[in-house]
Amino acid sequence: MYLTSACGYLLFNIANFVLNLQILALSVIMLLFEAGVSSGLENQIFQYIDLHQNEFIQTLKEWVAVESDSIQPELRQEVTRMVELTADRLRAMGTTVELVKLGSHKLPDGQSLPLPPLILAELGKDPQKPTVCFYGHVDVQPAKKEDGWKTDPYTLTEIDGNLYGRGATDNKGPVLAWINAVESFRALKLDIPVNLKFIIEGMEEAGSLGLEEIIKKENQRFFSDVDYIVISDNLWLSNRKPALTYGTRGNICFSVEVRCGERDLHSGSFGGIIHEPMTDLIALLDSLVDTSGRILIPGVYDDVASLTEEEKKLYEAIEFDLEEYKNNSGVKKFLYDTKEEILSHLWRYPSLSIHGIEGAFHEPGIKTVIPAKVIGKFSIRQVPHMDISIGEHQVIKYLEDVFSKRNSPNKLKVSVPISAMPWVADINDPLYTAARMAIKTVFGQDPEMIRDGATIPIAQTFQNITRKSVMMLPIGAADDAEHSQKEKISRHNYIQGTKLFAALFLEIAKLHGQLQEASNTTTTN
Amino acid sequence: MYLTSACGYLLFNIANFVLNLQILALSVIMLLFEAGVSSGLENQIFQYIDLHQNEFIQTLKEWVAVESDSIQPELRQEVTRMVELTADRLRAMGTTVELVKLGSHKLPDGQSLPLPPLILAELGKDPQKPTVCFYGHVDVQPAKKEDGWKTDPYTLTEIDGNLYGRGATDNKGPVLAWINAVESFRALKLDIPVNLKFIIEGMEEAGSLGLEEIIKKENQRFFSDVDYIVISDNLWLSNRKPALTYGTRGNICFSVEVRCGERDLHSGSFGGIIHEPMTDLIALLDSLVDTSGRILIPGVYDDVASLTEEEKKLYEAIEFDLEEYKNNSGVKKFLYDTKEEILSHLWRYPSLSIHGIEGAFHEPGIKTVIPAKVIGKFSIRQVPHMDISIGEHQVIKYLEDVFSKRNSPNKLKVSVPISAMPWVADINDPLYTAARMAIKTVFGQDPEMIRDGATIPIAQTFQNITRKSVMMLPIGAADDAEHSQKEKISRHNYIQGTKLFAALFLEIAKLHGQLQEASNTTTTN
Repeated sequence: MYLTSACGYLLFNIANFVLNLQILALSVIMLLFEAGVSSGLENQIFQYIDLHQNEFIQTLKEWVAVESDSIQPELRQEVTRMVELTADRLRAMGTTVELVKLGSHKLPDGQSLPLPPLILAELGKDPQKPTVCFYGHVDVQPAKKEDGWKTDPYTLTEIDGNLYGRGATDNKGPVLAWINAVESFRALKLDIPVNLKFIIEGMEEAGSLGLEEIIKKENQRFFSDVDYIVISDNLWLSNRKPALTYGTRGNICFSVEVRCGERDLHSGSFGGIIHEPMTDLIALLDSLVDTSGRILIPGVYDDVASLTEEEKKLYEAIEFDLEEYKNNSGVKKFLYDTKEEILSHLWRYPSLSIHGIEGAFHEPGIKTVIPAKVIGKFSIRQVPHMDISIGEHQVIKYLEDVFSKRNSPNKLKVSVPISAMPWVADINDPLYTAARMAIKTVFGQDPEMIRDGATIPIAQTFQNITRKSVMMLPIGAADDAEHSQKEKISRHNYIQGTKLFAALFLEIAKLHGQLQEASNTTTTN
Repeated sequence: MYLTSACGYLLFNIANFVLNLQILALSVIMLLFEAGVSSGLENQIFQYIDLHQNEFIQTLKEWVAVESDSIQPELRQEVTRMVELTADRLRAMGTTVELVKLGSHKLPDGQSLPLPPLILAELGKDPQKPTVCFYGHVDVQPAKKEDGWKTDPYTLTEIDGNLYGRGATDNKGPVLAWINAVESFRALKLDIPVNLKFIIEGMEEAGSLGLEEIIKKENQRFFSDVDYIVISDNLWLSNRKPALTYGTRGNICFSVEVRCGERDLHSGSFGGIIHEPMTDLIALLDSLVDTSGRILIPGVYDDVASLTEEEKKLYEAIEFDLEEYKNNSGVKKFLYDTKEEILSHLWRYPSLSIHGIEGAFHEPGIKTVIPAKVIGKFSIRQVPHMDISIGEHQVIKYLEDVFSKRNSPNKLKVSVPISAMPWVADINDPLYTAARMAIKTVFGQDPEMIRDGATIPIAQTFQNITRKSVMMLPIGAADDAEHSQKEKISRHNYIQGTKLFAALFLEIAKLHGQLQEASNTTTTN
């Protein structure tokens, strides 16, 4: 402070004021930029989407009205009708649609039932544009009013800004949001900046029957020019904050059969003189996990990836309401107390759950039976970099060891009816960068980078077979209650989700252009 | 050998021959006596029974034709019809019949269903005669041809001397054998040497609903002048050797509920962060019994009666085909190798069996669920002199201790939905003496003195409430397959069983006379 005269002081203050004004203006600009103020093009599209939201909801209503339940055989025709309805919608916006026949499958009663066709569709084939493939499904879980629905599950009903109905969030809403986004470009006669592909199935809720074979078969054809695969079939972690999902746990399901004979015995006539299979099975199941939830099978934790500092920071940044999660579960006390511990044990550490026993008495009341053949069911949620076949081997060997120490004359048989690998994506992949930008544009905030403790094999299946970049981009909120009697998507999420997909097309295109430029630069150097 | 002449030798030979003849004759007489050659009166009755066996079988055929299944609500009217048919038959032979109304019971679906009436009947009221009360039931287990029956279950069909049909041995055959015995006396215009009472129900297979209340209510009236109660609702231990049953094990059934919340959770969304109720329950169930079948609950064996020398001898005397029993069970290896060990562990030592788990996943396939509320079911077969309330307390305390060491926040609830005391009779009671004599008369051999590892609460109920002498006198063979798709009674057992009951009346009367004399003698001394 060299100027000590009044004038000098005044001048200084004015200069300071101007500087402050400049800083303020810069801050406002930066804030606006940070909050994701959208471009003119985006604005135009978003405005269109806002203006036509009731039409989009009307279409969702029409889709929800189709009881496309893929579980109950008698509704299979409705699933097929839903797939055809979807195909019609896609065709109406100029998409080339192929309905791939998947044959039929056998029900437990021996009946053979045709599978609904699978949609493979494409819109645009410009070699200058990146190609984004969207995966979704239009079948739903069973739902009946008498299950406890407050509204008719097949009549989309808006209450307090929420659209209740079966399939609203899982997965008809997100599929339509994607279609709405495309339609908005077309309605505005705007160039869609990416080539689009669609793979839409009608058997997801029944285990995506036939899907994997088609992906394998189409890998060199349909998927050959796909750059990015986007799945929107899960939920945010919270009710308010958007999320991007970059990993899911895998699962190995085990069946442990212990058998003493062919027919059940009376506990009065044989209790006390035979090695009861149920006692053996209970001992085997009791050897799997301790009271703190730690898996007791030797070697299980050997290949679990170490927690990195980068990953730790991701957990710290997440807004996760532990109390809300606890309340949603109905469980009073969890094994861990902090957000970081809870999230890491759900997402990046393995867990073992015992699901039940087949062949034993399971009804209310008492039946004094000694079951002759009992099958324990448990599963291990796997995480990177655990290996399914190593895991299988470890568990089987361990159970056989425990069993052999019992000196039981019963027969043990351990099998693995289903398994699915864990999935984790590189969050620095351009697809994730584009989605982060799009989320910021639409929601004005960064997404939470989340994983899913559950197993969603489709992401890993796509990644494993096609080797493309795969992302899960949910638009539904944590309280959307998929599969339950309160399934809904909020009007806000459905419409903002539509905007998000539109913004994603633009961001991918931008990024793709940049990437191409960068790669061109490298080539000319 | 002093006589060496030919004459002397001849004389010696003749004398020797005569001696041999005498010995032979004596042997034959002794053999005949041993084999239980019956008196003139018995002979007359047995002859009548043999001559009329086809009529007796015809009646059994008519009874088997009534589908008196007490399990299936829609057949309840047939049970009532069967009770009325039985009442008619009793009335026809001069019995005074009272049909006691038992009210109705609630089905699991809330429906109220009337119970069939209970028969209380009596024939003869001579104060000089002992009074024998016969318990039986005329309801049956469900049976359908398509369950795997080779013959129509409700058409009594004779194949190779066996009468196949639902209820043939359990319990219509034995009830009719008793009635046939009475009818034979009447047909021959012979005095029935005992007063007879009947208590016949139609809800045994459904748990003898309402029976205990009536026994309590009628204790001072109907049962006041009863001396002996005979039940014929079980089987011999072998296919050939008749048996007398003097004990059954009791049973305490436990329900162990572990709960973390109200609704099941997804193992992907909660696996690894909660104390799973199933893990707790499995640990609790695994703490109950070791691999050798020994119950691990402290104090459980404290009150088990010691094995006496007399009892040991009873086991040794029993003809028990261990291999056949093993084959029947389908189990390759038992916990014990000798007949004595097997029988004592079935009859006079407690056992613990785990029956199953309610609330967990129990179907084929896999469901990756964390059940929120699971209920383990197990039972302990009790033996004299174990006490139900002490046993309950020991088990509950033990489970609570094991659970508390797990530091689980879940809720534990142990309950005892059903229990029944063990029963053992004094085999030196006059009723058993009379039955042994009758068995020897009819079958030419001593009965096997057996117990039953299963729980047949009715004997203990009668003994406990009425304090009368109670005996279980089976007439069906071990391979009668009650409750199964091969239920039968052999023509031989049905007809010899009829004779056995007739002989029992005579033996009880004889013994009663002797007893009276003995007691008179004592009094006059």
